[in-house]
Amino acid sequence: MADETVEVDEKEIQEFFDVAVSVARKAGEVVKEAFYKEKTIDTKSCGTDLVTETDQQVEALIIGALKEKFPSHSFIGEETVSSGGKCNLTNTPTWIIDPIDGTTNFVHKWDNSKELKINNWLLIVILQVTVVIGVVYNCIKDEMYTGRKGLGAFCNGVQLRCSSCTDLSSALGITELGASREPSEIEVRIRNFRRLAEEPARVHSIRMQGSAALNMCSVASGAADFYYEYGIHVWDIAAAGIIAEEAGATLVDPSGEPLDLMARRVLVTCNKTIAQEVAKYLECIDLPRD
Amino acid sequence: MADETVEVDEKEIQEFFDVAVSVARKAGEVVKEAFYKEKTIDTKSCGTDLVTETDQQVEALIIGALKEKFPSHSFIGEETVSSGGKCNLTNTPTWIIDPIDGTTNFVHKWDNSKELKINNWLLIVILQVTVVIGVVYNCIKDEMYTGRKGLGAFCNGVQLRCSSCTDLSSALGITELGASREPSEIEVRIRNFRRLAEEPARVHSIRMQGSAALNMCSVASGAADFYYEYGIHVWDIAAAGIIAEEAGATLVDPSGEPLDLMARRVLVTCNKTIAQEVAKYLECIDLPRD
Repeated sequence: MADETVEVDEKEIQEFFDVAVSVARKAGEVVKEAFYKEKTIDTKSCGTDLVTETDQQVEALIIGALKEKFPSHSFIGEETVSSGGKCNLTNTPTWIIDPIDGTTNFVHKWDNSKELKINNWLLIVILQVTVVIGVVYNCIKDEMYTGRKGLGAFCNGVQLRCSSCTDLSSALGITELGASREPSEIEVRIRNFRRLAEEPARVHSIRMQGSAALNMCSVASGAADFYYEYGIHVWDIAAAGIIAEEAGATLVDPSGEPLDLMARRVLVTCNKTIAQEVAKYLECIDLPRD
Repeated sequence: MADETVEVDEKEIQEFFDVAVSVARKAGEVVKEAFYKEKTIDTKSCGTDLVTETDQQVEALIIGALKEKFPSHSFIGEETVSSGGKCNLTNTPTWIIDPIDGTTNFVHKWDNSKELKINNWLLIVILQVTVVIGVVYNCIKDEMYTGRKGLGAFCNGVQLRCSSCTDLSSALGITELGASREPSEIEVRIRNFRRLAEEPARVHSIRMQGSAALNMCSVASGAADFYYEYGIHVWDIAAAGIIAEEAGATLVDPSGEPLDLMARRVLVTCNKTIAQEVAKYLECIDLPRD
């Protein structure tokens, strides 16, 4: 209820931000170390939905550190929810945490060697969801993406800006195959992919990187012009959502309607024109809400 | 004809290698500078097959430097062939050159800022196709991938090795949408993609990076377990092919038959088992030969 909203002032937000960045960096050290070791892999919803012991350990570490600093805050963590925890958005300042976004990339190392550091799409996501702060940290490449409501988005101090593309046929898009192997779901994904590839949409090309947070940061940095996905969760898009918005991105439901953070689908574009264009070609997948 | 084969000794191969690496590095400087500027974009076979003035300039620069050193050698360059040059493989030592692999990524900057250096899949490919040397240089990230027949594959001095994955359902694959928007071709691409995603193949996931050379280097480094594509050209796969093979990869035609470098299709896998498995699910696309 509105009258229960916890008032948060600028000084407190600055403290949340500093703590978020510092906790992300510490968690990154743990993830980085684990990245180069053999992993114990488990599955969640299905055989293609992977989780490692590191996901769980790092989430506990992050929540522990935040609880110590902010005992009255609420927490939504990917692994906590997967093992039966609640996913409630209240008026209390709420941190949404995804310890490793792109677990499949993590398992496959998308980087074979400590010395190489190639293809590493490994991220830590933290967000304070009164929707004021977003932090996405790629610990392997040491890229710290941050967004603060009204104060812009940055990567390692460099301001991010979306592209100025307004012509869909010149746009570079991103999507994902996703973890679900439900034939009816794959059917819709493939129809959407195909519609964007063929006339009249005929986009430049489509990429798949295996990380919702990185995909959104790619739109934020202007590397891609749009990204859409079905089946993601609030912890996949919350932090990067602020970063993208602060870089000038439009975030909507893939239908073109306003975004619902809990509806498990998203369309992020460099601007409104591309959002309207892409939405025309997308058929929606309805999924159980977070 | 066999009796016209030009004999090349180890010392000469060492010289070819040293020159290849040094020319790639020089060309990289030019590409890197152009990367951050506005580009004049033109199209080749169709509106989604992009070329920039940089592709053409850098190819001329590379061929010029090589011709000066090796006036008797032959050259096959992507841009030269596109503008009507010949694509003949003779017994003379032949350099196969792709100035920028992943022109769509180049155009879209897959990197928004000089300071950031994120998502940069920009490559220079040089190869001496008596099939003894392969060089792929990512000038933005300064990653020099090299392969020498019998002497292994390396990235910045670190030896590359394919993964040991033998179970397709645990494999991470890579493919591409490709430049062609011919509905019958897209149809086959999508059927292949779907067969690999669904039961019984049900691979872990599929990525799309927009660069054949980088995709093959990803298999070489163990980051991905297989990569297949239709519509590529000899200059897209020749250099990275040696790198992948020297890292332990199996290179075949997507039908499972021996690879034909000029047939415009490839299947690169971490080993023979995965090659046989993936080939079972792939329907071939026949294209005019190089």
